[in-house]
Amino acid sequence: MKRNSDQPIKITEVSLRDGSHVVKHQFTEAQVKSVTKALDDAGMHYIEVSHGDGLGGSTLQYGKSLVDEMKLIEAAVEEAKQATVAVLLIPGIGTVHELKQANSLGAGLVRVATHVTEADVSAQHIEYARKLGMETFGFLMMAHSAPVEKLVEQAKLMESYGAQGVYITDSAGALLPHEVRERVRALRNSLQVEVGFHAHNNLSLAVANTLAAIEEGATRIDGSVRCLGAGAGNTQTEALIAVLNRLGIDVGIDLYKIMDLAEEVVGPILPGSQEIRKGSLAMGYAGVYSSFLLHAERAAKRFNLDSRDILLELGKRKAVGGQEDMILDVAAELAQRKVEM
Amino acid sequence: MKRNSDQPIKITEVSLRDGSHVVKHQFTEAQVKSVTKALDDAGMHYIEVSHGDGLGGSTLQYGKSLVDEMKLIEAAVEEAKQATVAVLLIPGIGTVHELKQANSLGAGLVRVATHVTEADVSAQHIEYARKLGMETFGFLMMAHSAPVEKLVEQAKLMESYGAQGVYITDSAGALLPHEVRERVRALRNSLQVEVGFHAHNNLSLAVANTLAAIEEGATRIDGSVRCLGAGAGNTQTEALIAVLNRLGIDVGIDLYKIMDLAEEVVGPILPGSQEIRKGSLAMGYAGVYSSFLLHAERAAKRFNLDSRDILLELGKRKAVGGQEDMILDVAAELAQRKVEM
Repeated sequence: MKRNSDQPIKITEVSLRDGSHVVKHQFTEAQVKSVTKALDDAGMHYIEVSHGDGLGGSTLQYGKSLVDEMKLIEAAVEEAKQATVAVLLIPGIGTVHELKQANSLGAGLVRVATHVTEADVSAQHIEYARKLGMETFGFLMMAHSAPVEKLVEQAKLMESYGAQGVYITDSAGALLPHEVRERVRALRNSLQVEVGFHAHNNLSLAVANTLAAIEEGATRIDGSVRCLGAGAGNTQTEALIAVLNRLGIDVGIDLYKIMDLAEEVVGPILPGSQEIRKGSLAMGYAGVYSSFLLHAERAAKRFNLDSRDILLELGKRKAVGGQEDMILDVAAELAQRKVEM
Repeated sequence: MKRNSDQPIKITEVSLRDGSHVVKHQFTEAQVKSVTKALDDAGMHYIEVSHGDGLGGSTLQYGKSLVDEMKLIEAAVEEAKQATVAVLLIPGIGTVHELKQANSLGAGLVRVATHVTEADVSAQHIEYARKLGMETFGFLMMAHSAPVEKLVEQAKLMESYGAQGVYITDSAGALLPHEVRERVRALRNSLQVEVGFHAHNNLSLAVANTLAAIEEGATRIDGSVRCLGAGAGNTQTEALIAVLNRLGIDVGIDLYKIMDLAEEVVGPILPGSQEIRKGSLAMGYAGVYSSFLLHAERAAKRFNLDSRDILLELGKRKAVGGQEDMILDVAAELAQRKVEM
């Protein structure tokens, strides 16, 4: 495989952040320590530790964490001998105060995340992170829902604020390989800084999409061991490293150690299997947030509809988090349309 | 996506055959009936029913079936209103007698399977199946382990015997997307008959490999609902149909019905989740049969080695089923090499 970049590939393990959703934010310090220690020993580059919705996410709205994320960050920093501990910050949920605290505890990299059309809200957070001396990246969520030109425009904004790279974040696991290629290629052609890719496996394409991204020149890649992440989980780290080894792309991470920790360290934490099930598949197919699933099922019952038709319509309308109210309106409209047919 | 074929795509659901391995050949008539009925109602084209190792596989060596496969075939035929019931035949395990019986019970399609380098043993079975008036396909197993020219040569043999198409069978789930493309393209350029593709998900690439195959012109595709197949399972049918819908490729199978039966009909049969675990990943990485795993672990213990190093060496030597004896020799050699280093 020819890569459209000669920069080394850097992997960020997100199971201790994206996986926080899966365990309903109940990670313990002991779990964070054991996972971090094993990942660090395997040579993982970055280990992200935060509430699932980023710093400050521990609220009634997003789900209360069992343990203060600052304690978890501290625990991870303690165990990470060579890896850098990373954090996620979604402006509006977290603030620069939490970022400063996380950095003072040893977090060395931050991803500042916004909806794909709202990069402008990341300006002060990116600037602040750079001032702190942190490695600073932008993270454009629900990247499938915007046209490529919009994605490029928004990524360039983040670059202009000082981001050292911008991730294409396929939050709903909705992108197909050719769509990933198109997006990475467009950013590679427009940005001076690095391009990253964060996948979800809802359509069973996370590893393949990640390979497509790497081929097109993405150098910042996310994985989660045992797919421990929201929806159907992310790019399964151990499968990714195996495939990269097969391709002769050495990222300096020990495959056997990753396979072993997947079984022995992460396995016992998994509340259940991370298969692709009805809900996660519907999410990837419709291109919507998982928080819509339950609402759509309720609305479907009320209006005698199939919840997937509601999700598809929400996907078409590019509904975003916080627009759960729209679901009843959409359901009412679909029910009306059915009567008229 | 542009397909290199204008023929319609035909899907074969293999959960009631490849999935037989997962349930240790304990399928009941009631299970086969309920799964077949639901698949048939969703519009599935072909439903394969046989012992995991094909007709006649119910032996001490390959695992005894709970219910005679002829009874299971009969049960499936009874429920299949529009779908064709298919069978798998591995010459040497099954014979033309079982094929004749299966056909007399209503099985309309057979895949005659051989190791990728041994197509010649399929001649009389393919000819016999054609005489019976069955749709007849060749199925070249462990296709990753032969050079492309060898694969082409063997597929042409099957075509010369009368096969109406030849499947590239990635038994170990070891192929990468570009390797699938190369193989499908070569067969499309060399055969007059259809090209098929059967994936396993051990490297998390089954859906992506299947897409690559379809793009290159494969028209016969295998899937298993909930990944109910050997190793990490096959191309997850419900994810594949969702992706094909997204690509605008209508194969006439109802996605919602497949999603529902995955949850309600196949779900209760699953003995556990079909995640990618240490064993299945090692199998895909090394490119070996799953029957080697246990032997390699035993040999690893005896010679104080990592079982994965043994599997990798076996993969390099292209060890095939029945060569389990080779495992101890390989382990002894590796141990010796370690001493010398």
